[in-house]
Amino acid sequence: MRGRASGVSAEYGALWDALASSTLGGKRFRPRLVLCAHIGCGGVRDDAAAHVAAAFELLHTALIVHDDVIDRDFTRRGMPNVSGSYRDRAATAGIPIPVAEHRGMSTAIIAGDLALFNAYRLIDRSGAEGALRARLLDLMDEALFASAAGELLDVEFSVSREIPAVEQIVQMERLKTAAYTFEAPLKAGAALADASSSLQELLGEFGRDLGIAYQATDDLLGVFGDESLTGKTALGDLREGKSTVPIAFAATTGLWPQIAPFVGKGDLTREEADHARELLVACGAEVFTRGLASRTAAEAAARLDDMPAKLAEELRPVLIATLDRTR
Amino acid sequence: MRGRASGVSAEYGALWDALASSTLGGKRFRPRLVLCAHIGCGGVRDDAAAHVAAAFELLHTALIVHDDVIDRDFTRRGMPNVSGSYRDRAATAGIPIPVAEHRGMSTAIIAGDLALFNAYRLIDRSGAEGALRARLLDLMDEALFASAAGELLDVEFSVSREIPAVEQIVQMERLKTAAYTFEAPLKAGAALADASSSLQELLGEFGRDLGIAYQATDDLLGVFGDESLTGKTALGDLREGKSTVPIAFAATTGLWPQIAPFVGKGDLTREEADHARELLVACGAEVFTRGLASRTAAEAAARLDDMPAKLAEELRPVLIATLDRTR
Repeated sequence: MRGRASGVSAEYGALWDALASSTLGGKRFRPRLVLCAHIGCGGVRDDAAAHVAAAFELLHTALIVHDDVIDRDFTRRGMPNVSGSYRDRAATAGIPIPVAEHRGMSTAIIAGDLALFNAYRLIDRSGAEGALRARLLDLMDEALFASAAGELLDVEFSVSREIPAVEQIVQMERLKTAAYTFEAPLKAGAALADASSSLQELLGEFGRDLGIAYQATDDLLGVFGDESLTGKTALGDLREGKSTVPIAFAATTGLWPQIAPFVGKGDLTREEADHARELLVACGAEVFTRGLASRTAAEAAARLDDMPAKLAEELRPVLIATLDRTR
Repeated sequence: MRGRASGVSAEYGALWDALASSTLGGKRFRPRLVLCAHIGCGGVRDDAAAHVAAAFELLHTALIVHDDVIDRDFTRRGMPNVSGSYRDRAATAGIPIPVAEHRGMSTAIIAGDLALFNAYRLIDRSGAEGALRARLLDLMDEALFASAAGELLDVEFSVSREIPAVEQIVQMERLKTAAYTFEAPLKAGAALADASSSLQELLGEFGRDLGIAYQATDDLLGVFGDESLTGKTALGDLREGKSTVPIAFAATTGLWPQIAPFVGKGDLTREEADHARELLVACGAEVFTRGLASRTAAEAAARLDDMPAKLAEELRPVLIATLDRTR
């Protein structure tokens, strides 16, 4: 695609380069889950599985590129994202920052559309035909459908005055991220191995638990994480006033009046952030969130016992990696 | 999809309603061209053609929803678009305008992604299989690929200080709009009728000419159009400083120093707009643009003579409708 684009204009080729870089540096969770499930279920469609694995990673790229526009983020994984690189390029050319930012975001909308379309195309090009192709497309359809629903909830939470309940946050995060990150790739890998629908469902439930554990951990890293490892500022979530599990829990405690002023404070200082963290620990939000992560991870682990040994063996390391995260 | 969405949340159902309304009130050019080409080439795949026709209209919906975000437009066809309706809803709820606008734009990014994905899905669901399905997907791929390239050029033009040359504008408009509006739907309709690749190419060339004629007319309507018919303010293109054929031509004339101050003037008054229009007529920009429209339309008409009579008969009314526009 980059070659085709360069044929149109150097600038268009550069957009595909920017898209390519935005696929780098991730954890490759989605392709890994597709391939683990495919191998674990005794699948033999290696080439199709590779295409589908890439399709889910590219869907992820499309969603984060657009999510960064929605969140007005200009960096990702410690590097300028598509919005950021185009904003910086425009700013260097002497274009005023607000205009440069809008240009960066506009370019990112275009780049995300291209990634989304090509994610779909990779499923089509996987060589899967008939009922299998239809199933894979249904899974990607469900994945995007859920993610859009979750993103919409996230946007609503971000503008509403009340702090959502913990259950609402968990539901939002499951829809926005877990469904397309864990549930759909695992089911797709199993489908590629002609696994029974009951096994596909079991993998979906495993993925759901894994996703909640992952997101709860993510929420903790977003506030308590080591910036040098996460690649994102540990002030971001607090400054943004992002709806996360620890914040939702804290809002139900007596310390909330002291914590609230720091949440969504755009010019939050490091000292204020440190104080906010102390309060989040003191009110029990940190312990509660950690508990939610380990409880759901334990549920996921229990589901491994109902799976064929080979599959459980493939998935156990993924489960451990999910919990034992520093980034 | 709306039914499925309502099952998730009322808000999500409402998003699909907003998406549905944004498919209304258009000219239905794309589906019409798919069906005309299919019928004109003696096609018998009526059901598949209906799916593909709908797919191109939905691709159009996705692109305009995202284009409106990029252009910061909150109305389309005289009605609030997705961004506009969500901005208004948020503003009514007492959310500050800048936040409400960003919320509207964020929601529109999500809605566009859903439309784009489902456009692709409609091709997949058309029942076309094998080489035909691959050809249809290639055509939609080319359509989006070109549109993204054109949108990127448009974004660059909008931030650059120099006015692009007329040829650059024509090239940008062809990529951004004509390729997916005229060329791809015509080729797709012909492919569905198993037309020869030479006839598909001829239809592509006809579509390209038609597209240039259409866009030149559009540029004129954007400045000289009757607001009550176009449904958009005739000040918009001037205020935005939109790169159009008449503006690009005017920039090459001696009257440009008098016209330039009005182009991109955010607070342009009706009186100033009237004066700018007089100058655009006086410098010959209006005549030049009208001439470009009729010249390329004549070229399109000439291509009809090389087509089977039945096909030419189907397409002639489309050609006339394209030129004889008031909106």
